[in-house]
Amino acid sequence: MREVAIIGVGHTKFGRLNDKSLLDLLCEASLEAIEDSNTSNTDFDSVYVASMLAETLNHMTGVASALVDRIGLLPAAADHIKNGPASGGSAIKNAFYAIASGACELVLVSGAEKMTHITLPGGVTSAVATMTHHNAERIHGASLPSFAGLLTRSYMEKYNVPKEWITSIAVKNHRNGLNNPYAHFQKEITLKKAMESPIIADPLQLYDICPISDGAAAIVMCDANIAKKYCDSPILITGVGQATDTHIIYEREDLTVLNALRICSKQAYDMAKKTPNDIDVFEAHDAFTILEAIQSEDIGFFKKGEGAKAAHEGLTEIGGKIPINPSGGLKARGHPLGATGVAQVIELVWQLRGEAGKRQVADADTGITCNFGGFGNNIVSILVERM
Amino acid sequence: MREVAIIGVGHTKFGRLNDKSLLDLLCEASLEAIEDSNTSNTDFDSVYVASMLAETLNHMTGVASALVDRIGLLPAAADHIKNGPASGGSAIKNAFYAIASGACELVLVSGAEKMTHITLPGGVTSAVATMTHHNAERIHGASLPSFAGLLTRSYMEKYNVPKEWITSIAVKNHRNGLNNPYAHFQKEITLKKAMESPIIADPLQLYDICPISDGAAAIVMCDANIAKKYCDSPILITGVGQATDTHIIYEREDLTVLNALRICSKQAYDMAKKTPNDIDVFEAHDAFTILEAIQSEDIGFFKKGEGAKAAHEGLTEIGGKIPINPSGGLKARGHPLGATGVAQVIELVWQLRGEAGKRQVADADTGITCNFGGFGNNIVSILVERM
Repeated sequence: MREVAIIGVGHTKFGRLNDKSLLDLLCEASLEAIEDSNTSNTDFDSVYVASMLAETLNHMTGVASALVDRIGLLPAAADHIKNGPASGGSAIKNAFYAIASGACELVLVSGAEKMTHITLPGGVTSAVATMTHHNAERIHGASLPSFAGLLTRSYMEKYNVPKEWITSIAVKNHRNGLNNPYAHFQKEITLKKAMESPIIADPLQLYDICPISDGAAAIVMCDANIAKKYCDSPILITGVGQATDTHIIYEREDLTVLNALRICSKQAYDMAKKTPNDIDVFEAHDAFTILEAIQSEDIGFFKKGEGAKAAHEGLTEIGGKIPINPSGGLKARGHPLGATGVAQVIELVWQLRGEAGKRQVADADTGITCNFGGFGNNIVSILVERM
Repeated sequence: MREVAIIGVGHTKFGRLNDKSLLDLLCEASLEAIEDSNTSNTDFDSVYVASMLAETLNHMTGVASALVDRIGLLPAAADHIKNGPASGGSAIKNAFYAIASGACELVLVSGAEKMTHITLPGGVTSAVATMTHHNAERIHGASLPSFAGLLTRSYMEKYNVPKEWITSIAVKNHRNGLNNPYAHFQKEITLKKAMESPIIADPLQLYDICPISDGAAAIVMCDANIAKKYCDSPILITGVGQATDTHIIYEREDLTVLNALRICSKQAYDMAKKTPNDIDVFEAHDAFTILEAIQSEDIGFFKKGEGAKAAHEGLTEIGGKIPINPSGGLKARGHPLGATGVAQVIELVWQLRGEAGKRQVADADTGITCNFGGFGNNIVSILVERM
C-alpha cells in the first residue's frame, strides 16, 4: 500500500455566513488548500466532496461536478461522499484508498455545509434526523438531541456522574475556540452560565449542544513519495478506520458504549502500528458534550465511565494528559456537517506542523480523530503523523 | 495495484414496484449478490451504496448505514456515493480502489432508486434537474429532456442524420429487453410507433426516453487472489476511468462531443491495456436514444457522426460488429438512477459468464460500460474481462 500525505489545507470561517453559497464555501476552502500545497499548476486526478444535506438544503445533486469545474480542475474525477456528519471522514478515507491503490497521485477533499439560511422551525433538526432509522425512529419524531439527552441521562446514572462534569467539556471547548480564528464562537463561557442554560432534551442543556453552522474545509492529499516536491512539512495519514453499529439505537446492548468507535479506532491504530499512548492530540466529535466524554473512553484514553471526570479534572485541556479538541471542537468551532471531518484533520495538521498559535499542543507528533455519523452507527477515525 | 474481481451479482426486477421501499430493494439485490458469491458466512470489509435521490425522494440520509445493519454485515464500513445517474459507476470505482489498495478484501456495492411513488407533475424530472448547473440552468427551468432535445437536433443537423436512425436505437433496445427478465419493459415496439409517439422536447419523442423506474442492483467484489475460493468464474475489473466536463452545457465547444467519455474510456482502456477493437459488448447509458449514438462514437467504436447510422444498419445488434445494450439498456431495462451503473456491469458479468440466455453475445470475453452523470459532465467507464 502506497503511503499517503497531506500537503495542503484550507478552512473558511465557520459560522453564519449569509453572503456565501454552498459552492462558494467549497471553492474558498479548496482554492486555499491548493494554494497552501503549491499545486496550483498541477493536474489533480480526483476530487471528493463531503456534504450531508446539499440535496435537501441547497437543491444540488451535482455538487462535486460543480466544484471541479468552477475551480478549474476539469477533467478530474469528482464524487460526492455521504456518511451523515461523518461524510468528511469518509471522503478522506476514500481519497486515501484512491492514492494508496496507486490509481491516483493528487487528490482534493473538500467538505462543506450551508445550513443557517434554513429558518423553518425545526428545519435543520428535521433534515438531520433523516439519518436516524426511518421506521423505528424518524417517523416517530426522534431527533439527534433527543438521543443525546437519553445518552446523557444513561451515562450519568450508570457511572454516577454529576451533570457539571459533562458540561465542563463545553467550557473547555469554548476556551479553546477563543484562540481559533476560524471558530464559529470565540467567546468564553462559565460553567455556571452553561448549567443555567435552558434544557433542550432533559438533562441536555443549550450549552451542551453544538451550533448550526455554515463553513467548508479542504485538504490536498498525495502519494507520500512526491509530497516533499510540494511541501516542506507533509503530514502522513498512517491509520484509517471505519465501522458501523446498529442503526436502531435501542438495539444496542449498552447505549453508553460506542462499539463502532472501538472497532474503527483499533483499525486505525493497528494500520499505523500505534496505541492510544502514542497519541498527542485528539479531535473528538462533540456535537453534544456527552459524546466527547464517551469517545475519549472508547478511543482508548480513559476507562469506561471516567471520560467526563477526566475532562472535569483538566486532563483533556491543552497541556493536560491528552488534549482533546484544541480547535474548540464542534461546540465552539461549529459544525457544518460535511466540513467537520475534514476540519478535524486540518486542526491536527496545524498542530503537527506547529502552526496552531496560542492553542498549540507542545511537541505534537501524532493525532487521531473521531468523526461520528448517525448516532454512533457509522464512525470514522483518521490517524496522522509527522513525516 | 492488487487485481480486483467480481464474484457475485444480484438484480431486482426493474419497474414500478409499489410494495417495496428503497431499503427493501437494496436488501433484495444485496442478499442475492452475497448468495451468488458464496460469501454468506464471510465478513465484509466495506459496503458502498449508490443512490442519487434517496434524500429527496425517500427522506434517507443514512441509507448505507441502514443497509449494512439490515443485511447483517455490521460492523463493515458503509458509505453512500453520489454522482447523479453515474452513482453506480462511482461506487464501483471507489470499491475497486478500496480493494486495489490492499485495505479491503471483500466489498459489496449496491445501487438503487425508488422513484415511481412520486406523483407530483414534474416531480422526478425536477429532482433529477438538481444535477444541472444551479444558477445557469436549473433555476431557469432547464431539465434533462430539454438538453437531450437540443443535443438530438444539434447532432441531426451537424451530421445530416434522419431522426429515424436515432430512434431505431429504441427499437433495438426494446427488442433486447424482451429477453431480459429483469427489464422494466418486455415489449417490442416498431419504428413506426416510436416515430409517431408524442414530442416531448422537439425533436425528442416519448420513445426516445427511458422510463422512471424502481430497482436495485448489487455486486460483490474481492481481491482477485481469493476470488476462486468463492466462485468458479470470477470476472476481473481491469479498467476504471472517470472524467468531468464543463458543468454548464453551453460552455462546451461542441455539444455533440462527450469529452469526459473520451478521457475516461481512454483511462479504462489504458489501465486494461485494451483498445476498442478488443471489446465484445458495450453497455451504454441511453437515458435518451441520442446518448447511445454519441457514446458509441466517443468510446471508440464508430467515427464521429456515424453512431446513429451504425445502429440503423444493425451493427450494434447482438451478432453485429459491436453489440450495444444487449440488456435492453436504460430504454427497456429501465433507469433506477443509482442502480444503473451497477446493472450495466452485471449485464457484462452475465455476458462474460455465458449466462445471458437468449440475449447472449457469442464468445464475449471483454466488455465496457459508459455510466453518464450530469448531462455528460461526469462519466465513469468500467472495463471487465474473463479471468
